[in-house]
Amino acid sequence: MKIAIAQLNFHIGNFEGNLGKMLWAVKEAKAQGAGLVCFAELATVGYPPRDFLEFEDFIELAENSVQELAKAAQGIAIVVGSPTKNPVVEGKDHYNAAYFLADGRVQHVQYKTLLPTYDIFDEYRYFEPATEWKVVEYKGKRIALTICEDIWNIGNENPLYTVCPMDQMITQKPDFILNLSASPFSYTQAKTRIRIVKANVRRYDVPMFYVNHCGAQTELIFDGGSLVVSPDEHVFDEMPYFEECIRTYDLDEVKKGGRENEQPKEKMQLMHDALVTGIRDYFRKLGFRRAILGLSGGIDSALATVLAARALGPENVRVLLMPSQFSTGHSIDDARQLAENLGVQYDIIPIEGIYNAHMDALKPHFWATEFNIAEENLQARARANLLMAMSNKFGNILLNTSNKSEAAVGYGTLYGDMCGGLSVIGDLYKTEVFEMARFINREEEVIPENTITKPPSAELRPGQKDTDSLPPYEELDEILFQYIEKRKSPQDIIEMGYEEKLVKRVLRMVNINEFKRHQMAPVLRVSDKAFGMGRRMPIVGKYLA
Amino acid sequence: MKIAIAQLNFHIGNFEGNLGKMLWAVKEAKAQGAGLVCFAELATVGYPPRDFLEFEDFIELAENSVQELAKAAQGIAIVVGSPTKNPVVEGKDHYNAAYFLADGRVQHVQYKTLLPTYDIFDEYRYFEPATEWKVVEYKGKRIALTICEDIWNIGNENPLYTVCPMDQMITQKPDFILNLSASPFSYTQAKTRIRIVKANVRRYDVPMFYVNHCGAQTELIFDGGSLVVSPDEHVFDEMPYFEECIRTYDLDEVKKGGRENEQPKEKMQLMHDALVTGIRDYFRKLGFRRAILGLSGGIDSALATVLAARALGPENVRVLLMPSQFSTGHSIDDARQLAENLGVQYDIIPIEGIYNAHMDALKPHFWATEFNIAEENLQARARANLLMAMSNKFGNILLNTSNKSEAAVGYGTLYGDMCGGLSVIGDLYKTEVFEMARFINREEEVIPENTITKPPSAELRPGQKDTDSLPPYEELDEILFQYIEKRKSPQDIIEMGYEEKLVKRVLRMVNINEFKRHQMAPVLRVSDKAFGMGRRMPIVGKYLA
Repeated sequence: MKIAIAQLNFHIGNFEGNLGKMLWAVKEAKAQGAGLVCFAELATVGYPPRDFLEFEDFIELAENSVQELAKAAQGIAIVVGSPTKNPVVEGKDHYNAAYFLADGRVQHVQYKTLLPTYDIFDEYRYFEPATEWKVVEYKGKRIALTICEDIWNIGNENPLYTVCPMDQMITQKPDFILNLSASPFSYTQAKTRIRIVKANVRRYDVPMFYVNHCGAQTELIFDGGSLVVSPDEHVFDEMPYFEECIRTYDLDEVKKGGRENEQPKEKMQLMHDALVTGIRDYFRKLGFRRAILGLSGGIDSALATVLAARALGPENVRVLLMPSQFSTGHSIDDARQLAENLGVQYDIIPIEGIYNAHMDALKPHFWATEFNIAEENLQARARANLLMAMSNKFGNILLNTSNKSEAAVGYGTLYGDMCGGLSVIGDLYKTEVFEMARFINREEEVIPENTITKPPSAELRPGQKDTDSLPPYEELDEILFQYIEKRKSPQDIIEMGYEEKLVKRVLRMVNINEFKRHQMAPVLRVSDKAFGMGRRMPIVGKYLA
Repeated sequence: MKIAIAQLNFHIGNFEGNLGKMLWAVKEAKAQGAGLVCFAELATVGYPPRDFLEFEDFIELAENSVQELAKAAQGIAIVVGSPTKNPVVEGKDHYNAAYFLADGRVQHVQYKTLLPTYDIFDEYRYFEPATEWKVVEYKGKRIALTICEDIWNIGNENPLYTVCPMDQMITQKPDFILNLSASPFSYTQAKTRIRIVKANVRRYDVPMFYVNHCGAQTELIFDGGSLVVSPDEHVFDEMPYFEECIRTYDLDEVKKGGRENEQPKEKMQLMHDALVTGIRDYFRKLGFRRAILGLSGGIDSALATVLAARALGPENVRVLLMPSQFSTGHSIDDARQLAENLGVQYDIIPIEGIYNAHMDALKPHFWATEFNIAEENLQARARANLLMAMSNKFGNILLNTSNKSEAAVGYGTLYGDMCGGLSVIGDLYKTEVFEMARFINREEEVIPENTITKPPSAELRPGQKDTDSLPPYEELDEILFQYIEKRKSPQDIIEMGYEEKLVKRVLRMVNINEFKRHQMAPVLRVSDKAFGMGRRMPIVGKYLA
């Protein structure tokens, strides 16, 4: 038997588009000689469909897609993920299902058992877990259908769960395992995924085919990297990252093994490609082509602009340089140099007149007060106004250029530099921003060296530096990482060798700025714990605040 | 036995504050002669603690509070809700628990069984469900401890669940049921809650004591309304809404019944009081006192200002009137009249100079383009800048004044009139805004009559009216209600008698504006389905878009 894996880029709720893409893939799989083609989890609707699943109409449209695919299952079997109605009244209204389609009709449906409900996942919000497991027989082969998380509780070793679906299915002696996944990218995920698939193969001693999504859905980026693992525990094939791909494998050859074809996994390369994919799909799926960004001469906006130019083409990226009386001369030079290096359109619009008009209007009220955060923020907001005016006039989406360190401690102006439809580098700590800038410059100077080497500054008052109000980023980022990614307590972090006063100050800054992050743009997620849908915090919370 | 119900306003993560409040309530209950005092669900940590529950340190602080309360359980038993560690490795790390404390120590712990994971609830994200149920014995009485949702699957009739904890406990012949709840307000909730509690009493034929939170935690408002229901199915007592209250009941008298003491439930009064509570607690729990709002002369900002003045006192509310060249004369008059009626400080800051400064800066780029949404939005953003500048300078939190209808269809300027730390009326459809304005004016004219009767307009271009771009609000709101609250399909709504083109246009407007709502302030929730944490939608979704 020949098995095709179709690693495709679906679009949430785009039933026609997703179905059309799958019908095309069925033809392609047939052309490759496949007897079975497998699509990813919830392929009919895209992942994650979120509360669209509460609309009966939405579920019916998904069921229609399955019926259309069933019609196309002639001379080839099709395995596809789709939500489906729970036939009994009790429990959640729907299941997350894998359909086995052949000879023009639905032959078998296997529901998902383990429903991830943590971080960015909300599956128990929507789905009832499976309580029955049945291997499907097709052309003399016995196939175990599993969905994503189902294979992540190997032999019940995962403390989160109390059931192991494959332990149930293996008693029915499957010839191989299919896994339909929707496993979003983080810079550690591809390695972890391979480890898990290999561990399944080791335990059950059958080959495994793992099918992932590729492409981005707002903040979630799917890297693909679909897998075929042989019983010898070698990666028979790992599909490319961040692109659509259909490949067909001979089951006997996969069983034989002796082949190893893994993709390289370099953190900066992966994150870079993930972010480019994230930007590209955000625009494409919303039906936009052009971006606009504010370019300050600093490293954050420089990096975001490079990524945008690579995602959309420099001809679709426009930047504004908006100096104030506090901007240093080199900032404009550095920004201009970057724009020229990339070949993106740039315009210089000084904000002093706008700033002064605000100050004139506010004079009767600000009389006898000192220059403070109000005046600083006004500059950031004047810039945001200009960017949004250009966005509204010409249809360019504003991209946000905040990094994770400043988002964490609230070092940014709400409705100012925190504006934008999508946060490009909001899941990169400042130290990672530097690392990626150097990665981009590894062959030629794309980002002006001065942008990388000068001390970071918001340039909102004379001579200002980030380190005036923040600890050095090396230190700050490590404390943030321990708190955000590792959920360590203040005591844990202090015991790692950081000063108590500093740790408490940093964690307090994180927690009192939840109100700002609540109104932040969606953040392209590239780590295990990004701000946004995967981190849900109270705003009026008093813990460490 | 005398039983005290302590309906208190907790603060998320404020361990010291919550514990101190409970220790005081224990004393008060003793003074009232109670032999048992019962607090609400997760009282040690406040509700909802959200991802703070993922911090081991946070759980340990909660367990410390329980130990402190245990020490105080001398001469009185204490029942309190708290998160607790799952003692076994398998399953989620924590339980949502009810502790029974007496004679200085923990006597019994009952875990929660039914974990709401829908709308604003995420309990399965954090908690493992109970699988054991044991009635606790104290001073010759047998007590069934239940937590919130546990009583909402009466005899397994709720389609969401497959287990009924009280069906298990009733076999152990309890003398009464205690329910520790965290049941947030919506304008239908108090009625529903009484119906459910009565249905439990009917089925199990024992008295029931139901303890709710009161006070607000950002968007969620708890109305209290704690209940005592006698076996004769009468409401022996319903505690006041939106205020703290400790009352003690004689179990024998409750058993006897024959008393009916329900609160009045008038929709507008309830919503009004809920919003006032929501504003007040947002400020108090964040440690702020003063608000600022933009007052346009329109009904939305008028209503929000009245509510703010009632919540914080007029002396703590400041408004800006910010006319442009497109403002009509009566707008300023109406706004000024309202400010004078309320006694709030108002200032007039014209925005024309700021608007012109922007247009000057943009002239080289906007050259030969027509006045459009870009120029309209600039005005809204100039106003936001002024409000935020005052907020930053003087420490007043900006309150947002958008309503649910405009939030739904995206009729608002991101970073303009969508700014603010808290959305006051974002869960009121425009027709409900009118209804509440009339409710407020029922005895005297607080909101100028002209503000209520004139046709709604954003006044961002000459002669503009909302109905230029939107259907009449009576029609719009009904379509929105069917789609948002009832999750009806376009076909369902068309069959209710609405024009197909209109329905499709409205639903499309809702779905393509998800990106705006993503960056909206938290919305005080007063309906069954508010924008925000209880409605989670994809941004790049293509469904009906």
